Amino acid sequence: MDKVNIRRALDSVTEYWSQEVVGLANGSMYKVAKGKGETHWHKHDDQDELFILYDGHMTVHFRDRAVELRRDDMLVVPKGVEHKPVAHGEAAFLIVGLNITSTPEGGKPEG
Amino acid sequence: MDKVNIRRALDSVTEYWSQEVVGLANGSMYKVAKGKGETHWHKHDDQDELFILYDGHMTVHFRDRAVELRRDDMLVVPKGVEHKPVAHGEAAFLIVGLNITSTPEGGKPEG
Repeated sequence: MDKVNIRRALDSVTEYWSQEVVGLANGSMYKVAKGKGETHWHKHDDQDELFILYDGHMTVHFRDRAVELRRDDMLVVPKGVEHKPVAHGEAAFLIVGLNITSTPEGGKPEG
Repeated sequence: MDKVNIRRALDSVTEYWSQEVVGLANGSMYKVAKGKGETHWHKHDDQDELFILYDGHMTVHFRDRAVELRRDDMLVVPKGVEHKPVAHGEAAFLIVGLNITSTPEGGKPEG
């Protein structure tokens, strides 16, 4: 029952496309992350993925369209749907899912 | 797969302690709400309740302590734990749970 300040947690993130868990509720994992540049096309067959942008500009590409996210924009990527987030400059966001998805299979670019 | 701007969604909330659903992911319901003044002591035996403050100042009282929430603070109230949110002036927040909890049993004060 400790509070977490999301903005301060984001400030402490140093590695791009690497998620840090800041909360757990009802089986969902609340994570902070920063992104810069492109990720790989991927999908999550086991979980929806929810983004809330805190800073910057990120485009989430789908096979048939793209969604532009800016501050306070929330987007749900349903499970099984291919997507590719691209951060223009540095983007900071809250990401919610069932586990850590910042892996190569989860679209994370190679360091 | 439509985006929602949380701040604009909060701006459109007109009734205190009344939740409006803005997203669904992994069985959790993402809701915006505003509060002003006191709610009643209550607990949710079926779900954790997660708050993210967007504006204002809210105290979440527990039987043994109190947590002060300000902008970008996140707090998880575990299921079964008695609590009583009190908003000092108007507070605006995202609240995540399994269903709508802005009911008298969920602590909502009478209009």
